[in-house]
Amino acid sequence: MKSIQLAIVGSVGIDTIETPTEKRESILGGSASYACAAASFFTHPGMVGVVGTDFPSAFRSIWENLNIDLQGLQTAEGETFRWSGIYEKNMDNRRTLSTELNVFETFSPELPESYQNAPYLFLGNIHPALQLHVLEQSNNPKFVLIDTMDLWINIAPEELKQVIAQCHMLTLNESEAELFTGEHLLAKAAKKLRALGPKHVLIKKGGNGSILFSEDDIFLLHAYPVDHVQDPTGAGDTFAGGLMGALAASGKTDTNAIRKAMLYGTVIASFGVEAFSLDQLIQISSSDINQRITSLRKMIQI
Amino acid sequence: MKSIQLAIVGSVGIDTIETPTEKRESILGGSASYACAAASFFTHPGMVGVVGTDFPSAFRSIWENLNIDLQGLQTAEGETFRWSGIYEKNMDNRRTLSTELNVFETFSPELPESYQNAPYLFLGNIHPALQLHVLEQSNNPKFVLIDTMDLWINIAPEELKQVIAQCHMLTLNESEAELFTGEHLLAKAAKKLRALGPKHVLIKKGGNGSILFSEDDIFLLHAYPVDHVQDPTGAGDTFAGGLMGALAASGKTDTNAIRKAMLYGTVIASFGVEAFSLDQLIQISSSDINQRITSLRKMIQI
Repeated sequence: MKSIQLAIVGSVGIDTIETPTEKRESILGGSASYACAAASFFTHPGMVGVVGTDFPSAFRSIWENLNIDLQGLQTAEGETFRWSGIYEKNMDNRRTLSTELNVFETFSPELPESYQNAPYLFLGNIHPALQLHVLEQSNNPKFVLIDTMDLWINIAPEELKQVIAQCHMLTLNESEAELFTGEHLLAKAAKKLRALGPKHVLIKKGGNGSILFSEDDIFLLHAYPVDHVQDPTGAGDTFAGGLMGALAASGKTDTNAIRKAMLYGTVIASFGVEAFSLDQLIQISSSDINQRITSLRKMIQI
Repeated sequence: MKSIQLAIVGSVGIDTIETPTEKRESILGGSASYACAAASFFTHPGMVGVVGTDFPSAFRSIWENLNIDLQGLQTAEGETFRWSGIYEKNMDNRRTLSTELNVFETFSPELPESYQNAPYLFLGNIHPALQLHVLEQSNNPKFVLIDTMDLWINIAPEELKQVIAQCHMLTLNESEAELFTGEHLLAKAAKKLRALGPKHVLIKKGGNGSILFSEDDIFLLHAYPVDHVQDPTGAGDTFAGGLMGALAASGKTDTNAIRKAMLYGTVIASFGVEAFSLDQLIQISSSDINQRITSLRKMIQI
């Protein structure tokens, strides 16, 4: 059995999602689920998360079929985290309708022994104290990516800064970068964020792509232009998970390797939004991915 | 004297602009002014527009110093077109405070003889009937770019379609593309727009860059990441003007040449927004431009 090269911690949830044209109830969601599914095309990722005793075995099978390692997945007495949201007009605006933390409320993420030496670690969006707790269990990881959200920036900025200082790359969306730094222009915001410690800052711009700010350079990448979006939930996690999977598979951590990994993250995310939950990610093959990679490369070269 | 390779028709105005931090009164503006200034780094563009008898000679000198040809500039009895607007919060939202058409109301653009054989033609954003009138005076142009706006899409869609059908490239911003086609996703909107006739559709995404949709391919280009924006007015015109100037200088019209020209347009626009009016464009040199071109190329390559 291959050792775990990439551990991913995050939320696992059961989502109910409404778009302008459709509604899906109780579908598989959560940042760890999206990110692991995306990473699974490149490596055998280990999932660190928690589900309740109500968690459907069919959902677990989806992960197993994707060859995701579930040793780090805890099952706790109670109900699984649930979230429901609605996308309004053109999917541009998402409104949360309800959040039930359930077993997530008392979650303490633990790295199984087999994950502790994983050289790549993705600290998905959970409370920074929990991210720090995971990081402390990791043995000298080669590359740690941390994601966060407005909630933690608002209520736990000091803990967040403490864990960010120990990571190699921080990823945020545009509005979170502005919230965190008070800077509207990304070049300025990224400078302040890099000053917190991470070598790389990766700003997610949704349908407008992403920008990697490193010490001496910047990499600008558009999103892959899809002609159908069914559900954008989890796109950021899919992007980051695909990126970390591809990076782990490369064994590298240099800027050029990150650029290439961003291409993969972008392509996986483009598939992800074409269907609800992991519905499209479980359909596609490596050749579908490589086809879009070739096509994306052509779209950005000059 | 070199013959005119690029004629640019558009508005010439005197603007009053307020940003969250500054207010400038009666500064030089208008789509033809911005586009010609941008194009002037690559070619000797001919400006087609109208000013009133009140138009300051100092503004005319700015254009002359940029080596813009003014044979196509009419002076009409009355006052110059005036526009005033305010940028709210982070420059993201622009509100028009007043528009005085003045001499622009009865403007009939005429191509001087020396512009009639110009192989490149940029029909800036004016009434489609006037754009058509200009196109009819042009002798078999090699490449015509047309820009437009929500107003003409709403009040003169049939005339607009008629002139678009005769152009090689159409440029619009995202919201205009959606308004015109009813499609939110750019890939779908561009398909419908290309069906109107133009070989290329160039969607402007402001700070998020631009996308070129051609028959068989797509080119995705981010904006140049500036760390200072003083006034975004005219950025779209500067982008398009720089693009057309660079394309005219190349003598080509193929997709690869357009891609390269987009880099130039992007860089010129990045300078333009760093100051009000043409204040930054009259300061920079070719070497400043080439430096950012080199830097932008590094930011997009993989």
